[in-house]
Amino acid sequence: MATGNLLYAQSGGVTAVINATASGVITEARERRIRVLAAREGILGALREDLVDTARESIASIRALAHTPGGAFGSCRYKLKSLEEDRAKYERLLDVFRAHDVRWFLYNGGNDSADTALKVSRLAAASAYPLTCIGVPKTIDNDLAVTDCSPGFGSAAKYTAVSVREAALDVAAMAGSSTRVFVYEAMGRHAGWLAAAAGLAGDGADDAPHLILFPERAYDEADFLARVQAVVDRVGWCVVVASEGIRTADGGFVAESGGGTDAFGHAQLGGVAPYLAGRVKDALGLKVHWATPDYLQRSARHIASQTDLDQAIAVGRAAVRYALERRNATMPAVRRVSDNPYRWTIEPAPLARVANREKKMPAAFLRRDGYGITAAARRYLQPLVRGEAYPPYRDGLPAYVSLKNTPVAKKLPDWP
Amino acid sequence: MATGNLLYAQSGGVTAVINATASGVITEARERRIRVLAAREGILGALREDLVDTARESIASIRALAHTPGGAFGSCRYKLKSLEEDRAKYERLLDVFRAHDVRWFLYNGGNDSADTALKVSRLAAASAYPLTCIGVPKTIDNDLAVTDCSPGFGSAAKYTAVSVREAALDVAAMAGSSTRVFVYEAMGRHAGWLAAAAGLAGDGADDAPHLILFPERAYDEADFLARVQAVVDRVGWCVVVASEGIRTADGGFVAESGGGTDAFGHAQLGGVAPYLAGRVKDALGLKVHWATPDYLQRSARHIASQTDLDQAIAVGRAAVRYALERRNATMPAVRRVSDNPYRWTIEPAPLARVANREKKMPAAFLRRDGYGITAAARRYLQPLVRGEAYPPYRDGLPAYVSLKNTPVAKKLPDWP
Repeated sequence: MATGNLLYAQSGGVTAVINATASGVITEARERRIRVLAAREGILGALREDLVDTARESIASIRALAHTPGGAFGSCRYKLKSLEEDRAKYERLLDVFRAHDVRWFLYNGGNDSADTALKVSRLAAASAYPLTCIGVPKTIDNDLAVTDCSPGFGSAAKYTAVSVREAALDVAAMAGSSTRVFVYEAMGRHAGWLAAAAGLAGDGADDAPHLILFPERAYDEADFLARVQAVVDRVGWCVVVASEGIRTADGGFVAESGGGTDAFGHAQLGGVAPYLAGRVKDALGLKVHWATPDYLQRSARHIASQTDLDQAIAVGRAAVRYALERRNATMPAVRRVSDNPYRWTIEPAPLARVANREKKMPAAFLRRDGYGITAAARRYLQPLVRGEAYPPYRDGLPAYVSLKNTPVAKKLPDWP
Repeated sequence: MATGNLLYAQSGGVTAVINATASGVITEARERRIRVLAAREGILGALREDLVDTARESIASIRALAHTPGGAFGSCRYKLKSLEEDRAKYERLLDVFRAHDVRWFLYNGGNDSADTALKVSRLAAASAYPLTCIGVPKTIDNDLAVTDCSPGFGSAAKYTAVSVREAALDVAAMAGSSTRVFVYEAMGRHAGWLAAAAGLAGDGADDAPHLILFPERAYDEADFLARVQAVVDRVGWCVVVASEGIRTADGGFVAESGGGTDAFGHAQLGGVAPYLAGRVKDALGLKVHWATPDYLQRSARHIASQTDLDQAIAVGRAAVRYALERRNATMPAVRRVSDNPYRWTIEPAPLARVANREKKMPAAFLRRDGYGITAAARRYLQPLVRGEAYPPYRDGLPAYVSLKNTPVAKKLPDWP
């Protein structure tokens, strides 16, 4: 049997199913009699030697983790720089790993986390300390390279498509004497994957959403407004889905142009939806409503996709296997075998091919006019939102678990 | 057997379950061999003689109506004035009813709709035309008088509590190095029922939501900001739920103070959440996120409450029975028999006691400090969100129905 401890940490924006990955990691490790420590707040906990012992959690709690959104150990937004610039931090990580006999490090995050895991693994190799680093994919943005999709995306995509389908029925019912235009803001700073998922809400020429604004296409206000008016004239109402990250042709974020100051000179926190709503109201004189679900879309475990949940658990389990097989600097990636029936497997991908890259939507997924998705996009997206993975409820609310997170005694001087 | 047709219409903002009420109406009427016509876009359809024949819909479609949000026949925002001012319109309604042998009129809406139904019933009585008018309750705002709760509220309340519980887990995970304050905007222009429902998301002193802002209490910015800072100092992060209708002591809506102009002089459509977020960022220097779910909260049939669904169907069925019993100018109201176990019945209430009134939250439901709910509020709210009434899914999305809405041939000159 392998000896040593496995350290797991969560990084970047959390998702509805990152804890399902944690549950997969801990369950697989327990089956192999490996002790799993977790760092609080991602790499920061590793640097601070702020670790918890998951062995203190009951089987029921680890099972319940799989239906609990958020990040059970805390996550962080913290990017390590290059080995040269941040060498002391990388050395500190190795010190903490040595002190707690950490032989396997699993970092669950996006592009930046893959980069961190890669650098730690290189340093370990150079220092002769026997460490295996595995990146574990996670992001609602779906912008990770190599993997066909990223755990977390499917559930956020399902939330988006369901919400837009439902809100559209509301607008359709009211348009005769009230709201004519509805603007929904989807997360996605650089890639329009979630906005694209909204396209699943309808499939006819006049189905909502009628217009989708992608960061992959420059925002042209005159063209946009003309199209809104045309849809209202034809259908009677119009549902718009906008990526938070849309930009004008000169490269400026549209959301930022919305963030002026209010009547009292206070800074207004912009948002794409209220900005576009204001333009539709001013320029077209139509009654408009807008929604910005923000964190709701990435924490909505209540409407998680079964495909996404299955893949989140599978990458967690595979990461443990890869770790024990000493497949250093790899990441379990989803490979799509077929669209229909949807079949997938988990395969190892080199972290070097994932780190610091960004997967944009293929041009073939964007409709020629730039305001909708193609049949190819539907074939890709549809299986990812399939299946309902409902959490258990108690008294009408989801029964989410709170872990004990028992601290591991520190052995090193405080950091920094 | 009674002869004549029953006319059903939907009014005001739609809900996740108003179509369930329609399904209850049509099902009960079919069992009694009564033909149900429906007016498109509420009272506007009745005035325009724009009617559809629900007899053309299949049993499966009427059953599916019970799990479809929005308003299947269209709704409207249109208030009839007094009999004196709008006499021609009321006369036109009677003309349409006579032309289509409408002996029973069921108007499904809020306070205004109850008032309209009441006036139509009085005119009919004065004219000797045998018409029975029944108001059918509906509103996510829960501000209807007499009835213990309003169909539509329980599902929106469940959406709110679930969403806040989920987003809070996200904030808790990120607060160490990212977002510290999250502001959620709940609907409720005059009464804070939905904001109160968010209180179900947690139940300890440090559980989210930490601060709820009700329209029933004047918004005091300095006090609010001091409390946000205190929660952040104590808990590490803070979740705020704000009613869209909060006002300052001088009576002005806070949301309107947020609606200045942007850098280009364009009108900004305000919202309470971005306004409060801006204040927290400016005054406290904390990283903040905000969400405005808007129509999502009233159309979220995917997370409907079973209690709410049951009551929505029950008021629809009862309305038909009351109509056939010629209980003119009544409304089926929910009477609470006991909190725990929760028991309720449907009983007739006089429309005159419902029309144009507004039920605010009892003072006993607001915590003394004004920023949370009491145990009494929990006892009231909890049963209303209980039970999950999931719609069926097809390919990962809810399978909502679209009715044929076959028009009834017009018999009168166009209106107006």
